[in-house]
Amino acid sequence: MKPAIQCVFLIFICLSFEAFAQVDEDAIRQLFDKELREGQSYPWLVDLSTKIGHRLSGSPGAARAVEWAKRELDNVADSVWLQPVMVPQWVRGQKEEARIKKSKLEFNVCALGGSVGTGPGGITAEVVEVKTFEELKELGGNRIRGKIVFFNRPMDASRIHTFSAYGGAVDQRGSGPSEAARYGAVGVIVRSMGLNDEDYPHTGGLRYDPALPKIPAIAISTRHAEVLSKSLKNDSDLQFYFETHCETLPDVRSFNVIAELKGSEYSDEIIVVSAHLDSWDLGQGAHDDGAGVVHSMEVLRLFKMMGIKPKRTIRAVLFMNEENGLRGGMEYARYVEMKKEKHIAAIESDRGGFTPRGFSMSASNDVRNQIKSWRPLLEPYGLTDFNQEGGGADIGPLAPLGIPLIGFLPDSQRYFDYHHTSTDTIDKVSKRELELGSASIAALVYLIDQHGLD
Amino acid sequence: MKPAIQCVFLIFICLSFEAFAQVDEDAIRQLFDKELREGQSYPWLVDLSTKIGHRLSGSPGAARAVEWAKRELDNVADSVWLQPVMVPQWVRGQKEEARIKKSKLEFNVCALGGSVGTGPGGITAEVVEVKTFEELKELGGNRIRGKIVFFNRPMDASRIHTFSAYGGAVDQRGSGPSEAARYGAVGVIVRSMGLNDEDYPHTGGLRYDPALPKIPAIAISTRHAEVLSKSLKNDSDLQFYFETHCETLPDVRSFNVIAELKGSEYSDEIIVVSAHLDSWDLGQGAHDDGAGVVHSMEVLRLFKMMGIKPKRTIRAVLFMNEENGLRGGMEYARYVEMKKEKHIAAIESDRGGFTPRGFSMSASNDVRNQIKSWRPLLEPYGLTDFNQEGGGADIGPLAPLGIPLIGFLPDSQRYFDYHHTSTDTIDKVSKRELELGSASIAALVYLIDQHGLD
Repeated sequence: MKPAIQCVFLIFICLSFEAFAQVDEDAIRQLFDKELREGQSYPWLVDLSTKIGHRLSGSPGAARAVEWAKRELDNVADSVWLQPVMVPQWVRGQKEEARIKKSKLEFNVCALGGSVGTGPGGITAEVVEVKTFEELKELGGNRIRGKIVFFNRPMDASRIHTFSAYGGAVDQRGSGPSEAARYGAVGVIVRSMGLNDEDYPHTGGLRYDPALPKIPAIAISTRHAEVLSKSLKNDSDLQFYFETHCETLPDVRSFNVIAELKGSEYSDEIIVVSAHLDSWDLGQGAHDDGAGVVHSMEVLRLFKMMGIKPKRTIRAVLFMNEENGLRGGMEYARYVEMKKEKHIAAIESDRGGFTPRGFSMSASNDVRNQIKSWRPLLEPYGLTDFNQEGGGADIGPLAPLGIPLIGFLPDSQRYFDYHHTSTDTIDKVSKRELELGSASIAALVYLIDQHGLD
Repeated sequence: MKPAIQCVFLIFICLSFEAFAQVDEDAIRQLFDKELREGQSYPWLVDLSTKIGHRLSGSPGAARAVEWAKRELDNVADSVWLQPVMVPQWVRGQKEEARIKKSKLEFNVCALGGSVGTGPGGITAEVVEVKTFEELKELGGNRIRGKIVFFNRPMDASRIHTFSAYGGAVDQRGSGPSEAARYGAVGVIVRSMGLNDEDYPHTGGLRYDPALPKIPAIAISTRHAEVLSKSLKNDSDLQFYFETHCETLPDVRSFNVIAELKGSEYSDEIIVVSAHLDSWDLGQGAHDDGAGVVHSMEVLRLFKMMGIKPKRTIRAVLFMNEENGLRGGMEYARYVEMKKEKHIAAIESDRGGFTPRGFSMSASNDVRNQIKSWRPLLEPYGLTDFNQEGGGADIGPLAPLGIPLIGFLPDSQRYFDYHHTSTDTIDKVSKRELELGSASIAALVYLIDQHGLD
């Protein structure tokens, strides 16, 4: 080409690119405008949190949540269906009790999810405080047998990302009961997974090793963990009592709730936007994971309201049983594999309804780089963190199918103030922060839908 | 040089630079560690918010806050002094009343700061609702005279930065009363500067035009603004009544609280870290600006605790009277100019105690670029926004002296939920978010201290 023609050609390319980017920029701006002015995320979350409330797998709340989500999505999606899945049914029973014998102070505790109960009469034993499994091993059977083990390693407050602090401490809750049982302990107390001095305990799942005895386990509030630790320093032989009435009932049938907007060009290419519908049985599950539920529902609603006809199929999946079994996630992956469905990406929101900071990824470098190339379009909305690894628990089972996984990353600073506690209620959710999350996820879905993923 | 020598030299330079960056990186990491593990920001803010509470200029609370800050800083700083300044003394008087005549609904209102009161008996008049000053002008004296003007333009929820939404609506509060008086209005109702449906009003300062009559002005909660607007649609002639007992008393003497760590090498070069000690007379001024106060105090304490001997002088300035006069800021600038002090930077924190996002700047391009060059050191702590313009109200008067101004930018989403209201209380502050703010500002001060500013 002659220089002049080359030049014209280059200008043409530049203008095309600009025009192209401008279309995306405008669409994203409109998604945020629509959500911040006329969003349904917050009213939905108010309903889910207050009219249904907590919704542990197998509970009446979970069943009502399924009905609610289906009904609401029926008004929004092209199609909605319920995917059956058998889920565990763990029930807490009557309020837990815990105290030092000869003392009147009632400790703030709750049974860990999945724990066996002590039953009436409870258990009474001496307490051995440890910080790590190594410490436990060193003490060994002679020192542990017949005792209650008290895992009291705090989350590391100096980690900037609180999920990293959680990851560094949660082994005590997940594996602590079986590790203690290995050395003959009769019960376990775990310091709650919280970063503050708090008066309320954090529940959460434990995993019993099937080869070891199942012993009762409770979480204790961080403040009372300190009180107990101090009491033990004054009297290492003190007798501790706790009583729990939790039990695991037979599995029951529940559902993943699935809703779609059908793609207009590549309807066989599916983009999943997801969260989990179940919650622990304390509080209202507003942040965990009501926020993710309404984020996912709102992506469909925003597309619908704005008349965006997606090229690809946008599918919202509200998983059942993330908290204590992951049965919904596993069932969904089984279904995708069986049907040989083509998923081009699966996004999960399960870190609360806080101000958006970015997206984590578990994907090929090509996919990562493509998503990072959209950063200039997302940065004006505060989305700047694209470097963290990971997707989400429920979409995890899709990883072996080679599906790119993406996690929505909101600000993490307050998440563990509420996580798995009675304080995870709607008043802890900022309407705007929640809405920004919905719009952020919608923006990413829009870009993936428009441009595909390599 | 020979290639081999060049190469060695380059490696040397690279290693030096790396070593140099590593020292900064480590120091910043330690500042965050120290603050998140043993910070004093939160206990200080609990004290300021609950033991002293609100502290409008000239009030007993403000006097106690000055004493408190001086006492606490005496334990931390090399020197502390009180800089006298005469401040206005506006008092709210007994609780405001407002209702539609013939209706029982009491509206949630509060007098705007600086407003004259109606006195006993209040005022009763028809209401004219407008959204803009243009609309007011079009209506003109014939339609406005003898009426109450109701400014009801909401903050624009679609703006991502809430301060921008505030900036787009606050003219109604600041200038609305005089604009209405220009056309003969007898009173003003302003829709509160909040983004949610709220039951509580937001106070804040008005500025009377000295050439126009001073008419009483109140803010109304956003929810009641909607109720009033709807009522007016049903009955445009309705009579509205409100009664306020606020008044402006003679100026009183108060103080800026100033504390220093003396520089070891360039003690004449001063880095200011600042906030305002006064607050409105509703709530506890926890976010506005208790958070900034403890951020500033904590920078000195962190340096002291960690044994960092600053090269330059680090000066915390807690200004009096930002909310309704800016007298402290003006007095301080007068003093700096008179003493010909060399300030290399002035930082202000006055946007609440939320998760840090970055720093705004009002400075030369060289200074901006130098600060932006530190972004890789600050990004791991979530500080990614260095592009916004501005410093802070109290340090504004330093601008004509050519001093680079820097504003601490925390996440803005929840700020206007609490701003100038009874809900600005300690329970709205996240300990970790507050601490991250202190450490972020300390990190920036550290870098400026170590490297100076061009």
